[in-house]
Amino acid sequence: MRPLQGALVEGTATVAPAAATDESDLLLRAARGDVTARTPVWLMRQAGRYMKAFRAYSEKYPFRMRSETPEIATELSLQCWRAFGVDGVIMFSDILTILPALGVEFDVVPGKGPAICDTLRSESRVAEYELAVDRFAPSDQLPFVGETLRALRQETEGKTTLVGFVGAPWTLAAYAVEGGASRHALEIKGMMHSNPTLAHDLLAATSDAVARYACHQIENGAQMVQLFESWAHHLSPADFSEFAKPYAQRVARYVNDRHPDVPLIFFANGGSSYLELQREMVAPDAFSALSIDWAVDLATARTVLGEGTPIQGNVDPSLLLASPDAVDAAVERCIAQAGGPGNRHILNLGHGVLQQTPEANVAAFVNAAKNHGIRRS
Amino acid sequence: MRPLQGALVEGTATVAPAAATDESDLLLRAARGDVTARTPVWLMRQAGRYMKAFRAYSEKYPFRMRSETPEIATELSLQCWRAFGVDGVIMFSDILTILPALGVEFDVVPGKGPAICDTLRSESRVAEYELAVDRFAPSDQLPFVGETLRALRQETEGKTTLVGFVGAPWTLAAYAVEGGASRHALEIKGMMHSNPTLAHDLLAATSDAVARYACHQIENGAQMVQLFESWAHHLSPADFSEFAKPYAQRVARYVNDRHPDVPLIFFANGGSSYLELQREMVAPDAFSALSIDWAVDLATARTVLGEGTPIQGNVDPSLLLASPDAVDAAVERCIAQAGGPGNRHILNLGHGVLQQTPEANVAAFVNAAKNHGIRRS
Repeated sequence: MRPLQGALVEGTATVAPAAATDESDLLLRAARGDVTARTPVWLMRQAGRYMKAFRAYSEKYPFRMRSETPEIATELSLQCWRAFGVDGVIMFSDILTILPALGVEFDVVPGKGPAICDTLRSESRVAEYELAVDRFAPSDQLPFVGETLRALRQETEGKTTLVGFVGAPWTLAAYAVEGGASRHALEIKGMMHSNPTLAHDLLAATSDAVARYACHQIENGAQMVQLFESWAHHLSPADFSEFAKPYAQRVARYVNDRHPDVPLIFFANGGSSYLELQREMVAPDAFSALSIDWAVDLATARTVLGEGTPIQGNVDPSLLLASPDAVDAAVERCIAQAGGPGNRHILNLGHGVLQQTPEANVAAFVNAAKNHGIRRS
Repeated sequence: MRPLQGALVEGTATVAPAAATDESDLLLRAARGDVTARTPVWLMRQAGRYMKAFRAYSEKYPFRMRSETPEIATELSLQCWRAFGVDGVIMFSDILTILPALGVEFDVVPGKGPAICDTLRSESRVAEYELAVDRFAPSDQLPFVGETLRALRQETEGKTTLVGFVGAPWTLAAYAVEGGASRHALEIKGMMHSNPTLAHDLLAATSDAVARYACHQIENGAQMVQLFESWAHHLSPADFSEFAKPYAQRVARYVNDRHPDVPLIFFANGGSSYLELQREMVAPDAFSALSIDWAVDLATARTVLGEGTPIQGNVDPSLLLASPDAVDAAVERCIAQAGGPGNRHILNLGHGVLQQTPEANVAAFVNAAKNHGIRRS
């Protein structure tokens, strides 16, 4: 790997000379594919119940109120940045936030997760949904999203990178068909295998909605956007190729046409057994980077994806329940597997922070990136 | 891939001339790594609740009684063979069956799964467990296992292959530490990362017990044995390398020393994102074949594992909820991905049969193997 690292050092022309001291857009530049002076770091679900400050809100306000009230969503998004100095702030939101605007109401049952009563299983429900997608107007229907992002941009401008958050079409559609958490996703998979036309109609409509939602987030301040294919573990490679990948790509192309400078990251949770299918999703008119789950070694991922592909990840979240020293060692190892500091790599977990995680270990994670992630040039 | 297939055809000297008509040991020969006249087929969890004949027992007798009463276990093991003509009979049993003999009692709560009260979390409990492993005497403590296998061998002798069933050491130890089904396996992973010495002691003892248990199954009639690393999805590649793989290999070496002609299959459910780590587990003194979960394309698996590695799998079990035609197409595709009929491949699912599966689709699965799996030579 060493000769190639050398080659990458020669290719650092896109990094401004002041890069080593100015860290405010480190994450943004790494997401764009630049070699960076330091490996940037943030954590999926960094705004979460592991934080005492977060629990003060989660014990007081129900789930949807927290993500749909700009003052609360703004505060929850910023807490971890203030506490740990992560290199990016992701809007506190949920994959399902968009659904009520598309005629699919949901509630979140504490300890059980989301619950959708009127699931999208019939041709008539999908037809209604398609009409709702046509009428979808984020500013009117989800005004809190724009408000939250504008407030966050004001707080973070010139200091850190603001990240938007959307569910990928397949995962979002799967939720709407299953009606909530699901062990085997048999309803959506039943539709895919027995009535593929209906599944494709549903996914096409969902892609259109997600694409416009992502643009709305960008137009209100998001500087990059991550698409969460959180249920990729339900998909075989064949199903991923037919039902997930083309719709995620459709979103990426739509957004790219309108906002070519805004990097998009694709995260397929459970998709690291078919990285070869994700490789071509990174392209000038598509995604800028791939977020990798913790089931694969990043060195292996690099081999499959090619050295030039920007990657994010992928420490096992359960490691953050061990000692701060163990966290430090895991970060050092992860950065080495990615090919060394600043090597088109965003340090992150391979999945969201677990709620049992001690805050001191999140601090250790971020600090380890700042210690071990400095590029020697 | 075609030139290599040609090479394999030239190497079929180990297949007896009568192979095309005698199908009784097709599974056994494929597990040993022979090119076979037809791709053999069986299904993980083929003795299961999807069968009406099985439910007649599961509604009447509690879980442990079914697997620990030779007459019932024998009948349940044979039902699917009689109904569908699969190429092997696997002893109806459970990963945890061995645990009570090692001082870890468990019960199975309907709808919730296994429940272990006295978990193995402390140094004193692990020390007790080590003593129990030293004293482990399968014939005395688990007499029903030998009885069941001897009865099954009598029923199947000369007609089909009898398969033994053991949990792999890491999964078995993880169950004993977690105490039951677990979302993130945080207890065992906490032990691995905070007290690795204790975890290694536990795993070493578990390997010794599993190795002797596998030999006991062979000595009572099992013609091949599958090790189920059912919880591999909880393991990062680094953890798999340190805590699972060496102990599975230890079992394989022990069994091989005593029964070099008995093929052992290793199945890591959720391990297809680190196939490169499994590759070297197939060796003359170790495993004969790898069973592959449904998260990877078998053609990709072949590339990673090498053309000569015998593989088993890997149709997505949810496909068996679609139409018989869809099942037929999925089998044809799977055999093609494995490199064509009889190409060191055992057709199976990538995980156990789902209980919602129509029996007609299991029949379609087996018949499709018999139609599309015939090697043209």
